[in-house]
Amino acid sequence: MRSYDKFLSRAGDVMRESAIRRMGTVLAGADDMVSFAPGYPAEDTFAWAAFAEIARELLSGADGKVLQYGPTRGHRPLLDAIAGLMADRGIHATPEQLVVTTGSQQGLDLLARVLCDPGDVVLMELPSYVGAITAFRNIGTSLVGVRQDPDGINLDDLMETTARLRREGANVKALYLVPNFQNPTGLLMSLEKRRLVLAWANREDVLIIEDDPYRDLFFPDCTSEAETRPISADDTEGRVIYLSSFSKTLAPGFRIGWVSAPAPLAAKFEMAKQAEDLCSGALDQRVVYEACKRGVLARQLPLLRAHYQHKRDVMIQAVERELHGMMRWPAPRGGFFLWAHLDVPVDSETLLTHAQALGVIFVTGAAFFVDGRGSEHIRLSFSAPPPERIDLGVKRLAAAVNAALDSRTTAPAAAGPARS
Amino acid sequence: MRSYDKFLSRAGDVMRESAIRRMGTVLAGADDMVSFAPGYPAEDTFAWAAFAEIARELLSGADGKVLQYGPTRGHRPLLDAIAGLMADRGIHATPEQLVVTTGSQQGLDLLARVLCDPGDVVLMELPSYVGAITAFRNIGTSLVGVRQDPDGINLDDLMETTARLRREGANVKALYLVPNFQNPTGLLMSLEKRRLVLAWANREDVLIIEDDPYRDLFFPDCTSEAETRPISADDTEGRVIYLSSFSKTLAPGFRIGWVSAPAPLAAKFEMAKQAEDLCSGALDQRVVYEACKRGVLARQLPLLRAHYQHKRDVMIQAVERELHGMMRWPAPRGGFFLWAHLDVPVDSETLLTHAQALGVIFVTGAAFFVDGRGSEHIRLSFSAPPPERIDLGVKRLAAAVNAALDSRTTAPAAAGPARS
Repeated sequence: MRSYDKFLSRAGDVMRESAIRRMGTVLAGADDMVSFAPGYPAEDTFAWAAFAEIARELLSGADGKVLQYGPTRGHRPLLDAIAGLMADRGIHATPEQLVVTTGSQQGLDLLARVLCDPGDVVLMELPSYVGAITAFRNIGTSLVGVRQDPDGINLDDLMETTARLRREGANVKALYLVPNFQNPTGLLMSLEKRRLVLAWANREDVLIIEDDPYRDLFFPDCTSEAETRPISADDTEGRVIYLSSFSKTLAPGFRIGWVSAPAPLAAKFEMAKQAEDLCSGALDQRVVYEACKRGVLARQLPLLRAHYQHKRDVMIQAVERELHGMMRWPAPRGGFFLWAHLDVPVDSETLLTHAQALGVIFVTGAAFFVDGRGSEHIRLSFSAPPPERIDLGVKRLAAAVNAALDSRTTAPAAAGPARS
Repeated sequence: MRSYDKFLSRAGDVMRESAIRRMGTVLAGADDMVSFAPGYPAEDTFAWAAFAEIARELLSGADGKVLQYGPTRGHRPLLDAIAGLMADRGIHATPEQLVVTTGSQQGLDLLARVLCDPGDVVLMELPSYVGAITAFRNIGTSLVGVRQDPDGINLDDLMETTARLRREGANVKALYLVPNFQNPTGLLMSLEKRRLVLAWANREDVLIIEDDPYRDLFFPDCTSEAETRPISADDTEGRVIYLSSFSKTLAPGFRIGWVSAPAPLAAKFEMAKQAEDLCSGALDQRVVYEACKRGVLARQLPLLRAHYQHKRDVMIQAVERELHGMMRWPAPRGGFFLWAHLDVPVDSETLLTHAQALGVIFVTGAAFFVDGRGSEHIRLSFSAPPPERIDLGVKRLAAAVNAALDSRTTAPAAAGPARS
């Protein structure tokens, strides 16, 4: 058989590889590459000794369920621990409202499947998280972008866009938001705007999907925990579906995230998960639970804030030194990302080609825009590389910008004699 | 908000809880229940000491990637190890043809999404695996059943059904099969029939989905490894998509399975997996890989065959003793299941009600039939309970049959005076 096209579903036919995951492949094949591409947490911050001790106890064989199939909803003690974390965030969630997911990514996928038919509209910020874009696109959802200000989504654009879509007969199901240290911009939505967005959703009868993986990683030198209060905490109508994860705070390799939703929706997410993977990893769930119970997570958080805040400083100092006048960026107040706008006449794809050749990678802006824009932006993740590699990577990036500018001016001339 | 119906997709609206997973919930809430319901492997057979030692080494922190995000395809050394296992089964599979999945269940879900649009037809045996039924139903696939003989699918019915469907204009995409120790019947498809089914698929231009989780668990007293040769091993046209798993041989809690498919389809499964969970558990994949590399898996297999063969003996002796004349069943030649036909005028749902009250559960037959039949069948999993619990459970089951028969004859009388 030469072609399998006739066997593909419409969804299968249009599936494409994510730009970020493709960068992961580039990275895997290169030795000295500095990666600002995937938003990986720093491995040297993981609580290795605590995890080893917990795993040792769990794998004694005393409790056979540690490696058995488990409930689709999740390991009950972990659900209770998550309810406790939710309470710390100001959100009342009973176990009937919670589902453990195989990473937050599965939560997004379950939402997309349970909520959206092809053609249904989900609104999202311009730019927004590429994993959410992919999950909704795989269902055939129509993603419509809304402008973003430094303090979060632009409410005028949100209202105008919704009104326009409704006039056109669209079924606007939900608004997807990452209010805390957004991926890719690093922006923090103001508390006032959160209130206004919730009021808008109640008025317009639209669900809010609040994706909150970075909430614990605010930078204390400029941001207080109070400023990260989730929209869901003030939701009195069951309007908000909230997602979070242990991937950025404990480790992504466990693949443990969660969804909190009104109980009838949580029940549907559980059914969708049954068909998708039966249950999340049994050992992984128990390690994460024990890390919550034993205070490992609580002890990690201040260390992680200091760690990533320091890397943010190193990154900002490096780009100010090396790329002054060539880029601008909003200062991140938490999370993993510096979102840079190119102030030179070089598009981000061209820059990436030069950067890769010089030993540094990042994600080009277009991956995060549902409206085809983004070629003037790049996302630089400063979370994983150690400080000296951040410095080196930014030096290479500056060299790449210069190389791109040079090739732009010399390319027409070089095309002639250089080949002779 | 009272109702979320208007926010559900068509798929979300029709999603239902699986009968097997529901039994898992019953089980979780009961202390002395004997469970013949979910097909759980026996926890006391897991290689606890080996897993503990492997986890200890992996969690030393020497290799940060042990808890990091990883490639969507899977941990490369694990993919190579799986290619080796496939070669042992007679199947040549390159890493380009393999995708590690979060359990075999995810493989089924990825297949369903990549291959099927609503209304596309997938053929499957009557009865067949409920997890496959659910995965395809969630996409809106039209599942059409084909009769099954003791040596596997009935070829005449397969050909007639396909011809009929084609006349009706249906798009017959694939045939789903579990040739080795089928779930739920325990049947083994004959080698001759495997050859004929493959020839049929090539002739009719239909894909075969070969689901093979039980292959290693043949019972040596009646079955040879040669009799388990996968259909995929003789596939020269790229016609077969093959799924398997470490859940029955190492442990299900790791949630590690795999799909082997022609490279263009494997690439699509990888893209679908990106949106579904980014990657499977990093630690889990490495524990499984090390268990392959260190010979743990190879040492487990003969032990597991003896273990489950012995439990099959205990189960058969118990049902012959306690339920003689009330049920009949094909003798399992491998795997986890006894598939019993009720020879008494009691339907399986009624029997389950009585059984649950008497402290034993199983899965009712209807869950496995896509044509609404199955009320005369029950699936008894003998894999998890220890021998004395199998005996106890079958005694309770016999009591439940008698109670069901009694209530059937006494019910009309009891309805009168008993309430007065």
